[in-house]
Amino acid sequence: MPRLRDLGFTPGNLPTGAYNAITDVPGVLVGQVTLIAGEGRLQPGSGPVRTGVTAILPHDGNLFQEKVVASVHTVNGFGKAVGFEQVRELGVIETPILLTNTLNVWRAADSLVTSLLRQNPGIGITTSTVNPVVGECNDGFLNDIQGRHVKPEHIQAAVERAQGGVVAEGNVGAGTGTACYQFKGGIGTASRRALDFTVGALVQTNFGQRRALRVLGAPVGRYLMDDMLPQPGPGSVMVVLATDAPLDARQLGRLARRAALGLARTGTISDNGSGDFVIAFSTSSRELHDSQPVVETAARFRETAINPLFAAVVESVEEAVYNALTAAETMTGRDGNTLHALPVDTLSRILAQHL
Amino acid sequence: MPRLRDLGFTPGNLPTGAYNAITDVPGVLVGQVTLIAGEGRLQPGSGPVRTGVTAILPHDGNLFQEKVVASVHTVNGFGKAVGFEQVRELGVIETPILLTNTLNVWRAADSLVTSLLRQNPGIGITTSTVNPVVGECNDGFLNDIQGRHVKPEHIQAAVERAQGGVVAEGNVGAGTGTACYQFKGGIGTASRRALDFTVGALVQTNFGQRRALRVLGAPVGRYLMDDMLPQPGPGSVMVVLATDAPLDARQLGRLARRAALGLARTGTISDNGSGDFVIAFSTSSRELHDSQPVVETAARFRETAINPLFAAVVESVEEAVYNALTAAETMTGRDGNTLHALPVDTLSRILAQHL
Amino acid sequence: MPRLRDLGFTPGNLPTGAYNAITDVPGVLVGQVTLIAGEGRLQPGSGPVRTGVTAILPHDGNLFQEKVVASVHTVNGFGKAVGFEQVRELGVIETPILLTNTLNVWRAADSLVTSLLRQNPGIGITTSTVNPVVGECNDGFLNDIQGRHVKPEHIQAAVERAQGGVVAEGNVGAGTGTACYQFKGGIGTASRRALDFTVGALVQTNFGQRRALRVLGAPVGRYLMDDMLPQPGPGSVMVVLATDAPLDARQLGRLARRAALGLARTGTISDNGSGDFVIAFSTSSRELHDSQPVVETAARFRETAINPLFAAVVESVEEAVYNALTAAETMTGRDGNTLHALPVDTLSRILAQHL
Amino acid sequence: MPRLRDLGFTPGNLPTGAYNAITDVPGVLVGQVTLIAGEGRLQPGSGPVRTGVTAILPHDGNLFQEKVVASVHTVNGFGKAVGFEQVRELGVIETPILLTNTLNVWRAADSLVTSLLRQNPGIGITTSTVNPVVGECNDGFLNDIQGRHVKPEHIQAAVERAQGGVVAEGNVGAGTGTACYQFKGGIGTASRRALDFTVGALVQTNFGQRRALRVLGAPVGRYLMDDMLPQPGPGSVMVVLATDAPLDARQLGRLARRAALGLARTGTISDNGSGDFVIAFSTSSRELHDSQPVVETAARFRETAINPLFAAVVESVEEAVYNALTAAETMTGRDGNTLHALPVDTLSRILAQHL
Repeated sequence: MPRLRDLGFTPGNLPTGAYNAITDVPGVLVGQVTLIAGEGRLQPGSGPVRTGVTAILPHDGNLFQEKVVASVHTVNGFGKAVGFEQVRELGVIETPILLTNTLNVWRAADSLVTSLLRQNPGIGITTSTVNPVVGECNDGFLNDIQGRHVKPEHIQAAVERAQGGVVAEGNVGAGTGTACYQFKGGIGTASRRALDFTVGALVQTNFGQRRALRVLGAPVGRYLMDDMLPQPGPGSVMVVLATDAPLDARQLGRLARRAALGLARTGTISDNGSGDFVIAFSTSSRELHDSQPVVETAARFRETAINPLFAAVVESVEEAVYNALTAAETMTGRDGNTLHALPVDTLSRILAQHL
Repeated sequence: MPRLRDLGFTPGNLPTGAYNAITDVPGVLVGQVTLIAGEGRLQPGSGPVRTGVTAILPHDGNLFQEKVVASVHTVNGFGKAVGFEQVRELGVIETPILLTNTLNVWRAADSLVTSLLRQNPGIGITTSTVNPVVGECNDGFLNDIQGRHVKPEHIQAAVERAQGGVVAEGNVGAGTGTACYQFKGGIGTASRRALDFTVGALVQTNFGQRRALRVLGAPVGRYLMDDMLPQPGPGSVMVVLATDAPLDARQLGRLARRAALGLARTGTISDNGSGDFVIAFSTSSRELHDSQPVVETAARFRETAINPLFAAVVESVEEAVYNALTAAETMTGRDGNTLHALPVDTLSRILAQHL
Repeated sequence: MPRLRDLGFTPGNLPTGAYNAITDVPGVLVGQVTLIAGEGRLQPGSGPVRTGVTAILPHDGNLFQEKVVASVHTVNGFGKAVGFEQVRELGVIETPILLTNTLNVWRAADSLVTSLLRQNPGIGITTSTVNPVVGECNDGFLNDIQGRHVKPEHIQAAVERAQGGVVAEGNVGAGTGTACYQFKGGIGTASRRALDFTVGALVQTNFGQRRALRVLGAPVGRYLMDDMLPQPGPGSVMVVLATDAPLDARQLGRLARRAALGLARTGTISDNGSGDFVIAFSTSSRELHDSQPVVETAARFRETAINPLFAAVVESVEEAVYNALTAAETMTGRDGNTLHALPVDTLSRILAQHL
Repeated sequence: MPRLRDLGFTPGNLPTGAYNAITDVPGVLVGQVTLIAGEGRLQPGSGPVRTGVTAILPHDGNLFQEKVVASVHTVNGFGKAVGFEQVRELGVIETPILLTNTLNVWRAADSLVTSLLRQNPGIGITTSTVNPVVGECNDGFLNDIQGRHVKPEHIQAAVERAQGGVVAEGNVGAGTGTACYQFKGGIGTASRRALDFTVGALVQTNFGQRRALRVLGAPVGRYLMDDMLPQPGPGSVMVVLATDAPLDARQLGRLARRAALGLARTGTISDNGSGDFVIAFSTSSRELHDSQPVVETAARFRETAINPLFAAVVESVEEAVYNALTAAETMTGRDGNTLHALPVDTLSRILAQHL
């Protein structure tokens, strides 16, 4: 499937990284497990299954031992994101970040802890407990969401498969069953270069009313208010931001708050029922679990130089949403419910008229 | 000067109130004082003067005695807004809301208190003190900002002149000397009807890099990167939201957070140096200063019905910014510094191409 | 076991409810399951088991259908509390509130959802998803915390057993294996009458350095710095506040923030590693899941009458901590680790000297 | 006047700095101007005058050019503190911190800006504007608060007089006319050594109901509920924290939140009408206004070593309140209103009984 740039349209002004993906931030890895099984009538607990899990690893080491400086931001809190309180207090993330479906979020967190216990057997016994960070969207229009089909082995596999380079988009991982502006959506990613640093975004889309959809400013949604409009309204969106700029937690919070501006460019009003959350981390600001000296030396990023990073966030979040839309393919799930792909040819035609 | 709708372009989907202004919310009044004097070289303390004050009154009664339920939100806190702590704690506003220039914000607050003392002589003696709410933008590119030329009599005049109906836009009141996407900006307003209620927005614009400017999605700024681009970068933006929907402070906070999405539609990344603040109030949720019963009866707005109000906020904030731009006229201030008006003909031509 | 009042010492000035318990708030129910099994060497996954679950039900109806207005507050966020984001946004709780151990928190949330799905089969399919609220403390000094021994049947039992009247304190439910100022702690509760309303507090204690312990102002901890001092430092504390005063979410937030002042009276500095969280709800401010009218009528509590409720919070939280301490009995857990009970006779003697 | 230690009673466990004052943090300076004039009947605008200003300077250099890392925290927001939004966003303070009376807060901020303009003539013209930080308490029971008698020359004098060493306490500066637990209160200060660092606190007290007063745990207030109890209820309290530990803004926020625990030890419930605010800064974490490199090197304080600093905050805030109480002398102000000093002999006797 094409990405928006493949269609000849370039969002924003800043250059991208090599893959135009969150993995352009050196060291960041993404692993995904996609679960598709069964069709026909919903049988809660059995299927059909249209779901999955996406894992984002800030680095390939032991994250509990080598935490990354982080921040979280809630744009609209109608959602079940796990682990935010501790990130707010301590300013670090110490596990892979997981995305999955809404009702699977607590099992995913628990499974993640199980695998971390293997790696760090002293957790809760000889050292402090661990704070898993998990986000979610509701894929219940296509998926047997009550079945909670993402199992511990899927969590483990997503983490183990995590790699750099190209990131699969659309109907994959946590985006397998999700929507975007009432089209089929899913996982999308993009990146930007700014100063000597990279900012990458990965989104799990499930938000927006089709009528509101804008692509690069063009009112695409208005042209496509056809009979295929699915019943279910807006869902949610998870945004993960990565950077190698040495920001502290307060500064990462400033970046996280800009993600909402990138989402707004695609038309959303952040609907009442939409759980819109942002998780941001820096790969170059780390804290060792067992570090000894009370005072260490760290890099500090000058506040007044931060605008290019803000722009990088807004642009990469906006483009990541478009990439989720163009990558996703039409999918039918439980009860014959169908989310249609945004027709790429039509999109190109509309954009050509407007740009 | 034309408003965007006069050019034939209609932002958003919802209908406007009668004046497409914050004054469409019944009872809301706006009063402005514009100060223009002198020209030539900046003589700090003397001039030239290009500034003013805008007062928004939630109702025409004694606001200290009859407070309105309110909320504030900080999009980017590089600014000197006054009175936010108490609004956050108590969820009410008890004075006219003032907008002025950055270095005048404390004198404006003090002058407002002076006039409230006349109306309520027991303040601080027989009853609690009063919490003025004042916002600001930096008009120092055109104005002798260090001179703090907005005096008590100007504050009093702005409050006394406050009226309903048409609101002057552009180079008026607190917008006299301000910019918008490096064009001349100023005061703008708009309103929307949703459910049986009205939402109105008034903005004091001073924000945005021209290159980023989008109007109704069209990348207008890119076409207009000419020699007239003034040196000074982005400033700030104040947004005041009014509604007659009976929202509580938490719900008004949800509306206030949507103002950022309306601003984002015009292209901004909420620059580091931009003080972007939102003040929201409901005219139909009041608290009497001297009420007696411990438990009263009040209207409560159902949470799940709130989406149309969110849309009304996003649309009215977006359009208020455009109205500020089209209303503002080219102005020259201190040291010959000039902010040029957005050329309306060119704007129309660009929009016609893109929409 | 005696409560502090049984020893002849009365904290605070306000009268208590009938049971001096959170269940004095009409309709509030508490159910607990205590798990004690095995002894000797820790075998992660097998035991010994010293843990449990405590469920607090705001009312005995269908909480998903009839939500209660609520607020949460984080005193120190080193903890894994679940469900806080949605409570902050929407201002309601729609499930029983669970307390358990740190590593069991996600399984408890998941089990709670399972039982809610039985009661509300449309969750995530025909209606929105559900937001479980779960708090935790780390009982790993006595308990095989990695074993996550609280199973779905225990969650269900705690909810089903929930009742009014006397609440078991000390080594029970979520307090089975927890500490308090390096003594054995656990569950404690207290209540206060103020105006015509009741405020109740229930705490799961696991916090504090013994040296810091104060009881009614007396420096009890300093007298008891003996050899029995266990290694592990401060843990955490969960506070649940209930009231029948018709407060809105903002006002409940003000109450929640006072819980920290009650904790402070017992000596704590809210240690770095302590997850100190507060959950507050009103039984008389409800929102129906399926309510129809956009505007309803609700009771509103006058802001300036709120001081007695603040005092009720501070006093009931302080006393609940003391009740947890005096009710808890010495317990030995994994690896022979022992938490000793605060010696009540000595406590009485110290208090008699100081008061 | 004696300080609590002079009476033979030692709050807390940590050692103090040389002066047991905020000035023990190297480089921190305090300057105060006390205004006492007239007596008899209140004539608003004329007097009697019982007020003043206290200035805390993080260092003796140009604070606008060399900002200090800082954080603010609102315990109860019924107050008019100025400058908090920008400190939250940017994590720095760039002016002297002023304390004064409630209705004088905006004039004080404006006067401070005036003096900063002299020192930094480019503010608002060639560089960004400046963010004064000012706190306040309501001294209107004794003082002609509507008169706003703190003038620009007083602000300037307080800043110019600022010095290290002994800090005057009680009826001085911003504490001239304020109360504390319905006794005469005022300015108090204390400090603690922890690790290799110093934490200092300075308070402007005006809070608390006498009945609630506790000193070192002893219920002093209950013994002193005599006829001298003044009408006016609780006011407010401002807390300024300084440290030379190299904390970032997030960590300073953690310290600031502990100030409430120190206040709680003295008995307060943080009354509805009490504006309780905390301002914290680190002298060793600075940001240059004109620094050039995007990435600099800075010291970072290890999170897990922070507990002793928390204890230092709680202890120094608690003791600063006591020092304000014991230093303040009985004062009569407008309309013959009198705030009586806490009788130190009686206090000693009560403490001797209880400790």
